[in-house]
Amino acid sequence: MDIATLRSRHPDHWMRATAIRALALDAVAAANSGHSGMPMGMADVATVLFEKHLKFDPKAPRWPDRDRFILSAGHGSMLIYALLHLTGYEDVTLDQVKNFRQWGAITAGHPEYGHVAGVETTTGPLGQGISNAVGFAMAEEHLRARWGAKVQDHHTYVIAGDGCLMEGVSQEAIGIAGRQQLSRLIVLWDDNGITIDGKVSLSDVTDQKARFAASGWDVFECDGHDPEDIDRAITAAKASPRPAMIACKTHIAYGHAAQDTSKGHGALTDKAQLAAAKEGYGWTGGAFEIPAEVKTWWESLGAKGAKARAEWDARLAALSPAKQAEFARIFAGDAPAKLASVIRGVKKAAVEAPAKLATRSASEKVLNAVNPLMTETFAGSADLTGSNNTKTADLGAFDVGSRNGRYMYWGIREHGMAAAMNGIALHGGMRPYSGTFMAFTDYARPSMRLSALMGLPVVYVMTHDSIGLGEDGPTHQPVEHLAISRATPNTLVLRPADLVEVAECWEVALSQKTTPSVMALSRQNLAAVRLTHSNQNLSAKGAYVLAEATGKRQVILIATGSEVEIAMKAREALEAEGIGTRVVSMPSMELFAQQDEAYRKKVLPAGPVRVAIEAGVQQGWDRWLLGERGKEAKAAFIGMSSFGASAPYERLYKEFGITAEAAVEAAKAML
Amino acid sequence: MDIATLRSRHPDHWMRATAIRALALDAVAAANSGHSGMPMGMADVATVLFEKHLKFDPKAPRWPDRDRFILSAGHGSMLIYALLHLTGYEDVTLDQVKNFRQWGAITAGHPEYGHVAGVETTTGPLGQGISNAVGFAMAEEHLRARWGAKVQDHHTYVIAGDGCLMEGVSQEAIGIAGRQQLSRLIVLWDDNGITIDGKVSLSDVTDQKARFAASGWDVFECDGHDPEDIDRAITAAKASPRPAMIACKTHIAYGHAAQDTSKGHGALTDKAQLAAAKEGYGWTGGAFEIPAEVKTWWESLGAKGAKARAEWDARLAALSPAKQAEFARIFAGDAPAKLASVIRGVKKAAVEAPAKLATRSASEKVLNAVNPLMTETFAGSADLTGSNNTKTADLGAFDVGSRNGRYMYWGIREHGMAAAMNGIALHGGMRPYSGTFMAFTDYARPSMRLSALMGLPVVYVMTHDSIGLGEDGPTHQPVEHLAISRATPNTLVLRPADLVEVAECWEVALSQKTTPSVMALSRQNLAAVRLTHSNQNLSAKGAYVLAEATGKRQVILIATGSEVEIAMKAREALEAEGIGTRVVSMPSMELFAQQDEAYRKKVLPAGPVRVAIEAGVQQGWDRWLLGERGKEAKAAFIGMSSFGASAPYERLYKEFGITAEAAVEAAKAML
Repeated sequence: MDIATLRSRHPDHWMRATAIRALALDAVAAANSGHSGMPMGMADVATVLFEKHLKFDPKAPRWPDRDRFILSAGHGSMLIYALLHLTGYEDVTLDQVKNFRQWGAITAGHPEYGHVAGVETTTGPLGQGISNAVGFAMAEEHLRARWGAKVQDHHTYVIAGDGCLMEGVSQEAIGIAGRQQLSRLIVLWDDNGITIDGKVSLSDVTDQKARFAASGWDVFECDGHDPEDIDRAITAAKASPRPAMIACKTHIAYGHAAQDTSKGHGALTDKAQLAAAKEGYGWTGGAFEIPAEVKTWWESLGAKGAKARAEWDARLAALSPAKQAEFARIFAGDAPAKLASVIRGVKKAAVEAPAKLATRSASEKVLNAVNPLMTETFAGSADLTGSNNTKTADLGAFDVGSRNGRYMYWGIREHGMAAAMNGIALHGGMRPYSGTFMAFTDYARPSMRLSALMGLPVVYVMTHDSIGLGEDGPTHQPVEHLAISRATPNTLVLRPADLVEVAECWEVALSQKTTPSVMALSRQNLAAVRLTHSNQNLSAKGAYVLAEATGKRQVILIATGSEVEIAMKAREALEAEGIGTRVVSMPSMELFAQQDEAYRKKVLPAGPVRVAIEAGVQQGWDRWLLGERGKEAKAAFIGMSSFGASAPYERLYKEFGITAEAAVEAAKAML
Repeated sequence: MDIATLRSRHPDHWMRATAIRALALDAVAAANSGHSGMPMGMADVATVLFEKHLKFDPKAPRWPDRDRFILSAGHGSMLIYALLHLTGYEDVTLDQVKNFRQWGAITAGHPEYGHVAGVETTTGPLGQGISNAVGFAMAEEHLRARWGAKVQDHHTYVIAGDGCLMEGVSQEAIGIAGRQQLSRLIVLWDDNGITIDGKVSLSDVTDQKARFAASGWDVFECDGHDPEDIDRAITAAKASPRPAMIACKTHIAYGHAAQDTSKGHGALTDKAQLAAAKEGYGWTGGAFEIPAEVKTWWESLGAKGAKARAEWDARLAALSPAKQAEFARIFAGDAPAKLASVIRGVKKAAVEAPAKLATRSASEKVLNAVNPLMTETFAGSADLTGSNNTKTADLGAFDVGSRNGRYMYWGIREHGMAAAMNGIALHGGMRPYSGTFMAFTDYARPSMRLSALMGLPVVYVMTHDSIGLGEDGPTHQPVEHLAISRATPNTLVLRPADLVEVAECWEVALSQKTTPSVMALSRQNLAAVRLTHSNQNLSAKGAYVLAEATGKRQVILIATGSEVEIAMKAREALEAEGIGTRVVSMPSMELFAQQDEAYRKKVLPAGPVRVAIEAGVQQGWDRWLLGERGKEAKAAFIGMSSFGASAPYERLYKEFGITAEAAVEAAKAML
């Protein structure tokens, strides 16, 4: 629909939607950076969505039963800031809009979760929002099944662009949503035909509607500037029993000289063109000026949501006090008080009957104890259920006919799985963990980074965490992946050595509220190394003295996970030669780094020579080998400096020199 | 088709195909690990492909005009080892097959490029092979356009499984191939309906044929056990003017008790079941025994290819000697002799007129000089052409009507781009480089790791390499990504500081034959720091003394890329206070680590205090701050310990404390 027709047919709508366009133009011009064109193109769709469909209450932005609105095309952040400002979200003041993209403002270049109430997820890296949304919709289905529609009954709306749909992760998300028939999920595709490099046709000929339909979605289309057509399409999408995609035909940078061009995607800052666009809009106010009646209308939209929210409050209050407390707890993300005693129970049983066990199997044992207690956990695997040991006996499959199931068969979709877990965690009320092989950290990386950036307590269960994977060979053997996760800010890497440490590490992971965990677990069986019970969670300190030197302490061996057993063997050999040797188990460098200096020096005193043993690259270890020592530093690293190989794992450890003998030799060479 | 019908209708075919099945069963049983079911299911398809269609010569496995056969479902590695052994590839002896998955054998758990002639690419991480194949097919189109069909005229065949098609990267690959109408690309989908966790329907309902068709592919189907139907489908696919996908309906673990089950996916080692399967096949030989007439038939297939290869040799020999030499050079991956002088020319011009310049713009300047010389380069960007500065004036677009173009608009598909670049490099005759933002290393990671594992000299042009990106905020600002690439074995990370270093780093990258490079480039303008010309490539040593201390050397400042300018400012301030300060520019830690100890100690002598400055995480730096020093180590790191933020970049550097003042303060505090 062209502007003249739209203005004449829907004059009120026009001014309301154009308030978004004007704010986007003004804010981008003020920042001299950003993306004007997308908010200008999708303003009409967003206006109809907020007016006629979205259930929201600006006064209670975290209300658990709100509809979720996700701007997957995050570069169009001024669309969401404009909407939140106009509808009266308290934090999003006009000053914030004026300070778009400036230091200290909550109006970041891309929408950042946690900065702005109303921003449900951090977007910008394309394809993430639409994939998070699948997790949001799964969470709604699951919680509705368990708590009833009186407490959970809402939709998830997504605005996605061509970039989102070209990213591979979107295919994984579409596949999951289609298979799961997530009927409350509605994707509004900003079908403007433009990318940064030019027309979409420069790089893609995909018939997106056919593509979505091929994965079990219902597809609709509308003129993305015609409010009646938009409303019709959204109404139809809501009625569909499947996830729905609406192709909204729009003009990027609608009404600007750059309309329908790739220039229109970016920052439209030319003053004369900006003035001309506003004149064409019939928009007479100065920069950042919104006519009072327009602002009032936008603010009135919240009233409907406020009423719905009040009714919901009453329904929640009608639940038993215990249920209310439980609902509050799971949405607060608090671990249950009993978790500590359950973990202690597992630890006690472990030391009473120490067994050779892969830490992935140990993890299953712990989860068997934890899952019945923490019914907010939601598990899964990217088609490696039997290998990741993430499914416990009490978890039924989450499926179309069994929405209360807590186990998800994600398919071979590590990236989509990670993005959906982020969505589940963001939705609230659930604590997702899922598994794949640790080498496939690579596939999930973009979403794992966003777990960390957003501060989501997702747990990545990464089994087969070294060359110990064996015959599958170097493609499946992580070497640099511990370093990769450790390099990422706000990420806990946990690499336990036996069942006791696994229990302790799960307690740490399940107690996090703002940090994701990477649980690195072995394929191969390992000897138990913690043979006496301690009520204390020693792993929570990151590193601790597992075995003390006899007599004079000459050597400290530091190891993680499967290599702690090797360190213990090396200690035995060194002690047999009269060389006092301490073994430090270090399940988490991050947690150890958080301890005070006194504790760190107690565990790693300056004197003895140090040998670190880990079947991964050295990067990250120098700090513990050399970093906090004043005097002459004698240290060695036993690990990997290349990719692995295909062979039985015992042979690989020998060939790559990750053995007790090598550790003994390295230590003795320095004495 | 059931086994009885197949055996009776096609008895000869049956024995030939069953030789594959028998070898797969025997090898997996001997290794007690691996995947039997896929080779058993796809044996008929592979037999028809090799018999009737594939152009190959076991005596010349690297022949540049062979058809490429790619086993994207790499876990079925025994399929390809069986085929290569049966057809007579010299390296793949029966002993190698018997040593499947053992230390030192070339028959690794997943097919490893470089171990086995005939394995065109390393597969196993799902979705990679099919995406590599897109690059192979692009390379064929491009080289055919430039060299003529007499020299380049072949097909690329892929066997892909459900896992490949569920991985998001496959959608990116499908999109690229469909847009580019790569008619020589034929994907044989092993449509067996089974994944590790169970039936495909457990996690997916996608109509794959509709999905491929939606992106511009032609789709076919066949009974994957009926040789006539298979031949008909492949013949039709070859005639299609578009990329073709053939859904081959197969039974996983065909003829085994585990047929059509997820158990059939894995290692079928039960002796009685194995014997029963062979009995059902009418296969009477012992383990690893192939009837002589069957082996002879398989070996005879190579004759057709040998003839075609001899004809091709003659056509190549008919080219002018200069052309033959050029063809040999580009397939050998040698840089032209003139490269050094072109680089020196850029460096000379740079010092004659030093200018403030972003290193991404400097990179464009270098490429403008290099691309006309090295016409084997093939460039592109994941929809950030104007930002990555990868397109030079002489490069036309690679497109349906302009196959000799050397610039590819990849679309918003970082992962597909990286995987296709691997395919282009593997094909030979071309040297691919392409760009995206450095933060999106994450999206390309699985393929970047495979570049390193396979030893492919792909260049990743990663611009906007720090918080210097500014307003787009933390989602777009790399912080841990230098560390991630540095943690990866066989990966060169190059972070030049100005135009001179950019030229040197490109010379390094373009001279690699077995190592990929990550070229980290700034968005923001930087002052020139190399102000005098040197014929020597100083960056090739990884680190060098950029500015020497005046008088007594008390401080060494080490920096990379955009932070070298900051180090130079800090030096100025320190020297003004009489504190002798050396600045070391360190464009590549990997190259510096390769230098001998004498050089390393010359650049970084033990005495002075050290301050490293890099707008990334500290991980990886401890080695240079502390690692090679005998005495009391005084060192500080100025960089990032958190994610970034959204604001103009000058403000970000100030707020995160990455400034000359901070470096001065840190140095003085240690003196």
